Amino acid sequence: SPDSKNQTAKKPKVQTGIDTLLPDYKKQLKGKRIGLITNPAGVNTSLKSSVDILYENPDIKLTALFGPEHGVRGDAQAGDEVGSYIDEKTGVPVYSLYGKTKKPTPEMLKNVDILMFDIQDVGTRFYTYIYTMAYAMEAAKENGIPFMVLDRPNPQGGNHIEGPILEPEYASFVGLYPIPLKHGMTIGELASLFNKEFSIDADLTVVKMKHWKRKMDFDDTRLPFVLPSPNMPTVESTFVYPATGLIEGTNISEGRGTTKPFELIGAPFIKSTELEETLNSLHLPGVTFRAASFTPTFSKHQGTLCHGVQLYVTDRDKFEAVKTGLSVIKTIHDLYPEDFEFLSTGSFDKLAGNGWIRTKIENGTSVENIINSYEKTLQQFSKTRKKYLIY
Amino acid sequence: SPDSKNQTAKKPKVQTGIDTLLPDYKKQLKGKRIGLITNPAGVNTSLKSSVDILYENPDIKLTALFGPEHGVRGDAQAGDEVGSYIDEKTGVPVYSLYGKTKKPTPEMLKNVDILMFDIQDVGTRFYTYIYTMAYAMEAAKENGIPFMVLDRPNPQGGNHIEGPILEPEYASFVGLYPIPLKHGMTIGELASLFNKEFSIDADLTVVKMKHWKRKMDFDDTRLPFVLPSPNMPTVESTFVYPATGLIEGTNISEGRGTTKPFELIGAPFIKSTELEETLNSLHLPGVTFRAASFTPTFSKHQGTLCHGVQLYVTDRDKFEAVKTGLSVIKTIHDLYPEDFEFLSTGSFDKLAGNGWIRTKIENGTSVENIINSYEKTLQQFSKTRKKYLIY
Repeated sequence: SPDSKNQTAKKPKVQTGIDTLLPDYKKQLKGKRIGLITNPAGVNTSLKSSVDILYENPDIKLTALFGPEHGVRGDAQAGDEVGSYIDEKTGVPVYSLYGKTKKPTPEMLKNVDILMFDIQDVGTRFYTYIYTMAYAMEAAKENGIPFMVLDRPNPQGGNHIEGPILEPEYASFVGLYPIPLKHGMTIGELASLFNKEFSIDADLTVVKMKHWKRKMDFDDTRLPFVLPSPNMPTVESTFVYPATGLIEGTNISEGRGTTKPFELIGAPFIKSTELEETLNSLHLPGVTFRAASFTPTFSKHQGTLCHGVQLYVTDRDKFEAVKTGLSVIKTIHDLYPEDFEFLSTGSFDKLAGNGWIRTKIENGTSVENIINSYEKTLQQFSKTRKKYLIY
Repeated sequence: SPDSKNQTAKKPKVQTGIDTLLPDYKKQLKGKRIGLITNPAGVNTSLKSSVDILYENPDIKLTALFGPEHGVRGDAQAGDEVGSYIDEKTGVPVYSLYGKTKKPTPEMLKNVDILMFDIQDVGTRFYTYIYTMAYAMEAAKENGIPFMVLDRPNPQGGNHIEGPILEPEYASFVGLYPIPLKHGMTIGELASLFNKEFSIDADLTVVKMKHWKRKMDFDDTRLPFVLPSPNMPTVESTFVYPATGLIEGTNISEGRGTTKPFELIGAPFIKSTELEETLNSLHLPGVTFRAASFTPTFSKHQGTLCHGVQLYVTDRDKFEAVKTGLSVIKTIHDLYPEDFEFLSTGSFDKLAGNGWIRTKIENGTSVENIINSYEKTLQQFSKTRKKYLIY
């Protein structure tokens, strides 16, 4: 009935970079050939794609499009190579930045005067789009082209920082730079930090959002959420991701192949009630666990009944994602030592950004001890981070 | 930060039937042997399963458990047979009501004095749990056993009724009785209507919720949402289901095999931008469409790139689900006549509850005409419905 307050009908509170770009930067862009790195989550407050906004603007010459993992139109499954092609709607060439070439080549940039980046990040270090951005900033620098980042909210809000700082020898495409697992920065702030702290030194402009406050999570912004990749369906997914994303480095299912990836986790050898009770007895802040069974339709344990838990973030401010993730992994390791395994691929260490967290878990060290080990470097980062905060 | 209002940390506003059962019905239940029909969504406000609540209560003798589609612990994929077994945690026998036997047999009820039903419905006629309830009510009547329904909120709220009334010759397990596609009733109210209007005549008790108001949708209740089946992951899914659930009767993917079933719909032969623009030009109330591509990991078009749209319900009060669903199907039929098909299985007619909606679409009739054709019978139902409203 009309009087019922309705969550979805309210006007967005925040304007993202693409909403503010054309009024604020019309002069700088006029007559320039624009190369845009984006994916389906690059939309304005009324869900219009940045590609179409720029393509339809008479003052803008859109000459190249670049797609990260899952492609410009977001139709590739995790891990699939995304080839180069012509965008049907605009006729503009689309280059893939996820296959062999992760970095725009001079050839791809030959018709580009300004390289623009508009992708929704999720605020967790091992989510690859921020490294697509870093490589593109390097290419812009090398080819003498200015780089513009259209800023977007961090879905988890802008206050929490948590987790170990990546150690350089563990750098990979799921963690290029020494930043914490949960960085609490917007993509524009991160671009400034990358540019200065890791000496990319590109001619960088961050197109700011309007009305975004650090305490806002994505729901608070009332912007429509577009899934930034096939297995990141909701804002809730972004909150549990820094916790259960680490599980990708083990033989436990992180819920890929279900409709609630990263919220449902389990394995055939787990007793869901036992895991639920053990985890709830830890009284981890802002989260509760529900015994749950599920059958993944692809990825780990495909077609096999798995038993585990669903994470319920009951208080997004109190929730400590990394502490929760480490506690879940340690608990399963300790309860099922014969069955639990870190994957031999070494992916856990790449996700954690070091090799000692795995060994500490293997040696039965407490989660508190693990967290204390990286507290100092996290505080140091926090000081560096402050220099780059825009909001 | 502490001052940020936090959606998930607030206390639930509503108590469901399982929360009110033991204080209010302790006397009637004392010493009786209870048979409970439930699934993982049968939890109290703190996510404790009704099975455990009844099993752990010294005054209650839980002697049998009955599982609907997907089973008591919710671990079977849609359509899989759920066999009979012993519940690990309680040692109580579990009988399946989804395989060959959809109705509890006298044998299954031999140790049962009261048959209890606690399952979260989603408010749409072709969601099967309400028919599991109807069969169980018949069995209770035939075996001289009282039947208790622990009431739960209708996730879509209690005001909207919409869609065609089922015509008896199209009755099936996805539609047993002449009720509309979207009935706006709680499961307890529906049990009373079934019992009287369709002469089941069981000794029925509805254990009422406390503090639920008809204008509340599930988010407004602040209860934790437990997915009632593997492809109904969020409250948003329940809102789009009466619209895109109809698509199951066509060769279009209704989004099974993605992380957003019923929100993402598409097919290999659709042009997503063309469909987005055509649907948005209809200015359907309370909904907008975003061009989207996806690759289902199972079910229709498995492994094949599909193009279509994502539905965004922008105003849950104004949204007309059935009108939207019919408009989507008609639009795709009209835009892609060579490729679009109603499935030869006749499933569309079973979901719609009649044979003439399909033929009207095939003959190019307008959606308004289709809706007008069932307006009268819908109003008649609305009068009948009023007699059974509890809140």
